[in-house]
Amino acid sequence: METDAAIGRLRFLRDVAGPLLDDVVRAHGPIDVMGLAGQGMQMGDDVHIRTQASTNLLMRNLLPQLAALHDERRRDLADFLSGNHLFFLTLAMAAARALTGWAAEVPDSSIVTTMSRNGTEFAVCLAGSAWWFSAPAPPIGDALYYAGFGPDDGAPDVGDSTVLELVGLGGAAAGASPSVAAFVGGTMADAAAMSEHMAAICAGESSRFKMPLLDFRGTPIGVDARRVVELDMTPKVTTGILHARAGTGQIGAGVATAPVACFRDALLDLDRRLSGDG
Amino acid sequence: METDAAIGRLRFLRDVAGPLLDDVVRAHGPIDVMGLAGQGMQMGDDVHIRTQASTNLLMRNLLPQLAALHDERRRDLADFLSGNHLFFLTLAMAAARALTGWAAEVPDSSIVTTMSRNGTEFAVCLAGSAWWFSAPAPPIGDALYYAGFGPDDGAPDVGDSTVLELVGLGGAAAGASPSVAAFVGGTMADAAAMSEHMAAICAGESSRFKMPLLDFRGTPIGVDARRVVELDMTPKVTTGILHARAGTGQIGAGVATAPVACFRDALLDLDRRLSGDG
Repeated sequence: METDAAIGRLRFLRDVAGPLLDDVVRAHGPIDVMGLAGQGMQMGDDVHIRTQASTNLLMRNLLPQLAALHDERRRDLADFLSGNHLFFLTLAMAAARALTGWAAEVPDSSIVTTMSRNGTEFAVCLAGSAWWFSAPAPPIGDALYYAGFGPDDGAPDVGDSTVLELVGLGGAAAGASPSVAAFVGGTMADAAAMSEHMAAICAGESSRFKMPLLDFRGTPIGVDARRVVELDMTPKVTTGILHARAGTGQIGAGVATAPVACFRDALLDLDRRLSGDG
Repeated sequence: METDAAIGRLRFLRDVAGPLLDDVVRAHGPIDVMGLAGQGMQMGDDVHIRTQASTNLLMRNLLPQLAALHDERRRDLADFLSGNHLFFLTLAMAAARALTGWAAEVPDSSIVTTMSRNGTEFAVCLAGSAWWFSAPAPPIGDALYYAGFGPDDGAPDVGDSTVLELVGLGGAAAGASPSVAAFVGGTMADAAAMSEHMAAICAGESSRFKMPLLDFRGTPIGVDARRVVELDMTPKVTTGILHARAGTGQIGAGVATAPVACFRDALLDLDRRLSGDG
């Protein structure tokens, strides 16, 4: 039954949302996805676990073109968009992948340009290398579950959304998000501590993702495997929790802490390549 | 010319936006305006000078009903809504007036239940009294002007929106709003200082307007004329700046500081009434 609903939703995305949004975006013109993410961050989005503000900004921007659709199915699209505060998440992931894909062109770097997990393994690649290094996927801590679900139901960390943590979003932007604070202790200082954690293992700061609480400092970008291994501190990922079995979908959200082993292995491989043993 | 545009806009509101929004709201059902304001505050709105998040939340809520309109003028309505991030402001003002109108039923109180200004005078009433007490309207400080305008162009403080400062919004909620911070020094600490200022002259704290930066403390509500006069501290109002001459409209925004004389006169009148000399 739940699987039927999931399949129905995929069909709706293919047959209705996709084509109509194609018309809407063509009529609107190019969308600055990371520009919207930056505005959303000023409005409490970490742009991973929380994308409410960015989604609403996008919806407001597209409203004229959506209203101009003659296709009566615009009403179904409106229902879908209105009920989906995470709509912006997939756009942000695609934009983040475009950035990291470019960064991956830099050779012989210790900056992490791929970070992903499949519910079983957590894996990373460094810039300039196509090799993946993996370790067992961690459980998700600091979790809040939907009613009726608990730790025994959740799958280990899963999905490609960790690309966000590589570009200054998600855990890196926790200090901008009151919603993240609710997961990690309740105060904005708790959320800010997660951004500080990420800053310790990142090479730079974003010039357009700014955290109001931290005097509008840029979010940390560029996870550096050297710092990760030296400090034994790994990326913190603000993420949804999926049910361990197919057909149920998201059952909560929380914070996953990446395993260190895959970063260590990637760094050893970089060392081998640099010393000509690769 | 500018006057023609202003009149055209009023006609649009009367002939198009009004009737269509009437249909939209009837189809949607009741709207919890202060509930949206509370969510907006978690997203950086002070709900006076900044209403972007609240406006977007309202728009997202109404999107299905707006898309369902068969009237082709829905496209004009969508253009208007999409281009007007202050749309929520007037709704918040009306909701705030409904609250203060009820509070005004309490007799013999020193709580301010009316606060308004007309570009010449700034006036207040206390709960339980129909008498207005006024003083000259202040200039607007901490101002940022639109390009081409400056201090010589602005009218003194004007409008009924100060009702927001009486219910925990606007200046009272400055500590929740990175946008307000930009006007008063640049950091969130500067914005929080304005909420602290309001807390010193208010009788209570909101149970649903919470400021993330201040550990989710409620915004100050219920301006108490006794505290205002005793401390010689008056309400801070985050507000738009209108041009001194008709036909131009808003030229900037900033912070107005209420004059103390009208609060003192209202308090003396309360004293006369309580001692039977009224």
